Amino acid sequence: MTATLAASLRCMTSPIHVLATGGTIDKVYALTGDLEIGPPAVTDLLEIAGTDLEVVVEPIIGKDSLHFSDADRATITARVAELGAAQVLITHGTDTMTYTAEHLIAHLDPDVARTVVLTGAMQPASMRDSDAAFNVGLALGALQSLSPGVYIAMSGRVFPAGAVTKDRARGRFVDRV
Amino acid sequence: MTATLAASLRCMTSPIHVLATGGTIDKVYALTGDLEIGPPAVTDLLEIAGTDLEVVVEPIIGKDSLHFSDADRATITARVAELGAAQVLITHGTDTMTYTAEHLIAHLDPDVARTVVLTGAMQPASMRDSDAAFNVGLALGALQSLSPGVYIAMSGRVFPAGAVTKDRARGRFVDRV
Amino acid sequence: MTATLAASLRCMTSPIHVLATGGTIDKVYALTGDLEIGPPAVTDLLEIAGTDLEVVVEPIIGKDSLHFSDADRATITARVAELGAAQVLITHGTDTMTYTAEHLIAHLDPDVARTVVLTGAMQPASMRDSDAAFNVGLALGALQSLSPGVYIAMSGRVFPAGAVTKDRARGRFVDRV
Amino acid sequence: MTATLAASLRCMTSPIHVLATGGTIDKVYALTGDLEIGPPAVTDLLEIAGTDLEVVVEPIIGKDSLHFSDADRATITARVAELGAAQVLITHGTDTMTYTAEHLIAHLDPDVARTVVLTGAMQPASMRDSDAAFNVGLALGALQSLSPGVYIAMSGRVFPAGAVTKDRARGRFVDRV
Repeated sequence: MTATLAASLRCMTSPIHVLATGGTIDKVYALTGDLEIGPPAVTDLLEIAGTDLEVVVEPIIGKDSLHFSDADRATITARVAELGAAQVLITHGTDTMTYTAEHLIAHLDPDVARTVVLTGAMQPASMRDSDAAFNVGLALGALQSLSPGVYIAMSGRVFPAGAVTKDRARGRFVDRV
Repeated sequence: MTATLAASLRCMTSPIHVLATGGTIDKVYALTGDLEIGPPAVTDLLEIAGTDLEVVVEPIIGKDSLHFSDADRATITARVAELGAAQVLITHGTDTMTYTAEHLIAHLDPDVARTVVLTGAMQPASMRDSDAAFNVGLALGALQSLSPGVYIAMSGRVFPAGAVTKDRARGRFVDRV
Repeated sequence: MTATLAASLRCMTSPIHVLATGGTIDKVYALTGDLEIGPPAVTDLLEIAGTDLEVVVEPIIGKDSLHFSDADRATITARVAELGAAQVLITHGTDTMTYTAEHLIAHLDPDVARTVVLTGAMQPASMRDSDAAFNVGLALGALQSLSPGVYIAMSGRVFPAGAVTKDRARGRFVDRV
Repeated sequence: MTATLAASLRCMTSPIHVLATGGTIDKVYALTGDLEIGPPAVTDLLEIAGTDLEVVVEPIIGKDSLHFSDADRATITARVAELGAAQVLITHGTDTMTYTAEHLIAHLDPDVARTVVLTGAMQPASMRDSDAAFNVGLALGALQSLSPGVYIAMSGRVFPAGAVTKDRARGRFVDRV
């Protein structure tokens, strides 16, 4: 283990900031028979996981990411820049998650040492067989282990921003070739 | 992102080897009213997660880790050495997980570049509110992101082997001070 | 216990016919991000319940009951009449379940001894916290215990057709006053 | 529908008394790695079911029913007699549920119009794939529909006390022949 990595792991109890932006992961079934964005699922998932990590969960947008505009992406990027947190987890709809990751790479100051990991879910956390708990775990495992940069943790893998795309037909995140 | 890290992330589609050794994560409720060790829970958890990762799951021991002997730890270490896999995930009971991690550190050849992450669960994967899916995600996120070494991914955190202990009263893995 | 009831309970291993008509109970989350009607949830629910009951599950309509026409109700009633089964369970969307129950009462031959129970769910069976398993249990408990007639088993209660309405604001089935 | 049944269904909003006696249904996984009897599962199950039924849940014994003595059965029977409730649901371990049902039949005053239904679960309510929600629904559907008497609602069926036995090898309640 390198000195840098040891230092990074030693820091892992500093607060992790979660920005919840909506998407499938946060969808719940309403009395009307429609799905709507509920409170950030990550809160309950961390409760079940049982952790002493200091985590701050901040809902900033509550939309299906299919309907994200450039203004929404700018809002997210501005908030990450403003936070000053060394470790940021973003929960996000899957349809435009890769675009937001690329927006972050393009607009965040590369000289600030900051690790950002985006994740979400193909099935809402409210479903019995959801990938949400696994994905949030995957993202937190990556977040605490990676060098600064922007990443996507989905489909059991960890991808650098810009090197990943969503295969819509299969519902899988894959290498962008 | 450093060149080393980029290389590491590029490798992440090479097969990951999972050694299942039993423990709480794999417990199921039998007709007799007792808990017993079922088939490796990690198989179903990866199915629900939905991944293109190549993962080989190998059950090698099926015991509550409270009953692990030095011979059991030697079996695990020998199998890891023999495998030659660059990325090994070990699912393990929580009571002696830290001892097995220390055994691995003490006996594996430090010149072989190999990342080993141990995980498990405080509640069986068969329970409604289990930490198993989250923990396996956490371990896989760490496994694909860390430099070679032996680690424990539990309680939402990633610990280097030797720097972690289980707080039995709280059911949490914490820094060893 | 009266002789009639004893006779009724002795008959309870004769086949129960389930007509699945869609509705919330059968909704699943599709890759598109929309809910769609999946295969009848009652099949999996009975598997988990573990029963020696002989049950035939027949999907006949797969719609949100909000979109049921009189023709759909006529289809259901005709199929119940045709079946000749003494015990019929109908899984149905909640929005027009009471109308279908009234249609059955109005059009089935009252001289045929047949017990029909309708049920459904306020949350899809695919959700973690669904009322589906409980409701299907409730309906089967009522079906095997009631005199011939048409009933609705929802919200923890058993109502005779015509005496029940859905309180949409609360998502509860209540006495029609 | 006979006049008696109509009357019975009209009464179904009167309070239902639940006696929780422990058993598999209430087992939870403790930090020690052992199963223990937790608070009555029926409370959460009714919350998820969503009902306006007035239900009083009273834990009176918290044991694996394998360890029930005649004194335990006498305690249950005495409490049912004392309650004066017309509808009593008893949650109970599966191993001696049929004995308690027979004890109730043998010792309760047959001239008091009272319906008692016993249920439980083969898998704890805390497990992902438990029969508990279905079984409690089944028992409540039967309880509200049956003539006075003592019954067991398990394995998807409703049995009169004395006419049922547990097939231990298969984990199913079946007709006693």
